[in-house]
Amino acid sequence: MSLKDTLSEIVDNVEGGIAAIIMAYDGISVDEVVARTDFDLQLLTVEYASLLKDIKRAVEILTVGDMEEVSITTGQLYVNIRVLSDDLFVVLVMLKDGNLGKGRYLLRLKCFDLTQELC
Amino acid sequence: MSLKDTLSEIVDNVEGGIAAIIMAYDGISVDEVVARTDFDLQLLTVEYASLLKDIKRAVEILTVGDMEEVSITTGQLYVNIRVLSDDLFVVLVMLKDGNLGKGRYLLRLKCFDLTQELC
Repeated sequence: MSLKDTLSEIVDNVEGGIAAIIMAYDGISVDEVVARTDFDLQLLTVEYASLLKDIKRAVEILTVGDMEEVSITTGQLYVNIRVLSDDLFVVLVMLKDGNLGKGRYLLRLKCFDLTQELC
Repeated sequence: MSLKDTLSEIVDNVEGGIAAIIMAYDGISVDEVVARTDFDLQLLTVEYASLLKDIKRAVEILTVGDMEEVSITTGQLYVNIRVLSDDLFVVLVMLKDGNLGKGRYLLRLKCFDLTQELC
């Protein structure tokens, strides 16, 4: 199964799914599936990649284990991020009133497949 | 009920609870309850306050509503943060193998009480 198929399986199977994106810390997308185009996803992913780099740095300073998952909820969106490797992570963007628990569960479930497909 | 009592109700009632802290964005604690002292909480909270300021700035640029909740999971810790006001937020620090769902639920539940007590 391709990366895009796996990303689609996440976005298409959760109520409120907007996009699933595999990214590098420099903000460049490796692959993505976008179900709704009414958000500026490019700006969002670049900003979140920069944040994630800051979080990774802080976690390293604190020596509390490797960063695994970050989620940020705002008035409109829920963004769940999982680290795939030293270089890559996967981002699930959802509407805040979507099924957040299912989205988070699917992302965690598919992380193994995504990591295998990236090898 | 005092702020400290409410913070205790969160930390003491969740398996894996380490600390609950009300903080300002400059990293200064307003009140805190610490159940375990084997982590450098001062460094942790200062780093997380700085991160939260970065996240707040990014969310404002993205115009996706106000920041409400941030959670960061590492190999050892789960940290759940909820915004209380323009100036303050509350942080729950837990062991990663604790009851994360209950911790998150209790923090959300007690946010109203904390906000009332801060008025």
